[in-house]
Amino acid sequence: MTDQTATERDAIRTVLDNVSRAIGAKDAKAVVSHYAPDYVLYSLAPPLQSIVTDERALVEWFDTWRGPIGIARRELSITAERDLAICTSLNQMTGTKTDGVKVHLWYRATVGLRRIDGRWKIVHEHESVPFYMDGSFRAAVDLAP
Amino acid sequence: MTDQTATERDAIRTVLDNVSRAIGAKDAKAVVSHYAPDYVLYSLAPPLQSIVTDERALVEWFDTWRGPIGIARRELSITAERDLAICTSLNQMTGTKTDGVKVHLWYRATVGLRRIDGRWKIVHEHESVPFYMDGSFRAAVDLAP
Repeated sequence: MTDQTATERDAIRTVLDNVSRAIGAKDAKAVVSHYAPDYVLYSLAPPLQSIVTDERALVEWFDTWRGPIGIARRELSITAERDLAICTSLNQMTGTKTDGVKVHLWYRATVGLRRIDGRWKIVHEHESVPFYMDGSFRAAVDLAP
Repeated sequence: MTDQTATERDAIRTVLDNVSRAIGAKDAKAVVSHYAPDYVLYSLAPPLQSIVTDERALVEWFDTWRGPIGIARRELSITAERDLAICTSLNQMTGTKTDGVKVHLWYRATVGLRRIDGRWKIVHEHESVPFYMDGSFRAAVDLAP
């Protein structure tokens, strides 16, 4: 049981690593291949939720970056039970936008996965930064763990 | 199996309803009673994450509201597998702050639960709004589903 769960966690970690690598390489097709058909995204950017799993939105977002996009995970926690898993982590996104702005953004990531036909697929991603409740309503893009 | 899962989903929905009701009544002790010992919160407000499950932070937050706090869930999805569950929903928080500001805030909520000693406990909550990527870095507190 323990070994099986460890093996499952390894398989799930590999999926997350592959997604990060695919984002880094701006390979939208590879990213989307990890999504389940009923994938629901709560993204860093509006709208509140997206249920689109086609590659177009990703390609448009990739085109706003000059060079590679880095995604590093810290404090990754993976909890798996049979065919369902929840992962939480603090992620750092790094790179340079096409307008020259350098990005070093820490954000929270919650990922839900289901094993479908023997393969772990991402059914849900929730990525966010908090916001300052000092009346400014500024997104807290300057935090670090 | 189907019935069992439906029963589990009902039990989980009841936990979420009870938490919303406890927040509405500003009953910090009742809210915290639903948290697992290893509860991790990604909150609307900084910091990036909180692992504190004591009632003090909740009481301080409750004290910033005049009268009751409303939490309504929409598009609630519950996926349960044995002793693990993931819930997603779009929530609306309503009420009046002590400075007279009226709040009508839609946000995204992801909740992870584990069944411990036969009772569903919340191990993780991730609550957020997206932010505008137009250079303003404003939190998108004006969205609605």
